[in-house]
Amino acid sequence: MIATAPRWLEDYPTGLVVECGTVGVSADEIVAFGMLYDPQDFHVDAERAQAGPFGGLIASGWHTASLMTRLFVTRYLCGESSLGSPGIDELRWPVPVRAGDLLSVRCTVLEARPSRSKPDRGLIQTLAEVRNAAGEVVMSARILNLIRRRPS
Amino acid sequence: MIATAPRWLEDYPTGLVVECGTVGVSADEIVAFGMLYDPQDFHVDAERAQAGPFGGLIASGWHTASLMTRLFVTRYLCGESSLGSPGIDELRWPVPVRAGDLLSVRCTVLEARPSRSKPDRGLIQTLAEVRNAAGEVVMSARILNLIRRRPS
Repeated sequence: MIATAPRWLEDYPTGLVVECGTVGVSADEIVAFGMLYDPQDFHVDAERAQAGPFGGLIASGWHTASLMTRLFVTRYLCGESSLGSPGIDELRWPVPVRAGDLLSVRCTVLEARPSRSKPDRGLIQTLAEVRNAAGEVVMSARILNLIRRRPS
Repeated sequence: MIATAPRWLEDYPTGLVVECGTVGVSADEIVAFGMLYDPQDFHVDAERAQAGPFGGLIASGWHTASLMTRLFVTRYLCGESSLGSPGIDELRWPVPVRAGDLLSVRCTVLEARPSRSKPDRGLIQTLAEVRNAAGEVVMSARILNLIRRRPS
């Protein structure tokens, strides 16, 4: 979807599936993110993480969400129509993300409806699923986005 | 709560309120986070953001969540008992976060219950609220955390 025509509310029909590509994650990136935002041993200290509840270093769930977002905004949203997100429902991290994982992101439109109060926009709800190379879902979320309607 | 005694499942009674302190956010930090993870104009380009839907630069919601998390894990959770988070419900960003904002974080225990399958731990549900200096809630979420029970 990069460098294609703008995408408007009308271009997110319910059921649309968009494969948003892949992103890798390294131990250094996991530790750097953890040091800044989520300094728990299992995110920032490989040695102590070995003896911890996950048997090794794992990415902060917010790091996984942030990596997902980079693909979400560049491959699924569109600068001409994206008006931000009011929120997220049912954010889940069922399987840990570990150093060396290659994550893929798939978006499915669950609902798209025009705004009742603002005729120039609408709300879409998207199921975002992040999988590791083994195909396990490591993160899922229902993401809300305000999207401009196609200009008449 | 820094440098105090360890806190176990039994130390998170329903209704407990913990004020977790404050964190500032600068334009440089907003742009740096946005460039890495959420490269939309209103997060990364102050000039284009002026003409955009928020009339200026705003922080990525994931950036706000990450800043909240730094206070959450250092002032509310405890390294001895924290076993990670299975997920988040009703994450909302009702008011934009702007450069220069000073954010405060308050945690309220909504529920705490022992695990049925694993006797050494339990699950707590926490309402995390992030406010700006004007007292507006800029983010709220119901956060799930697995917490060890007090060793017998």
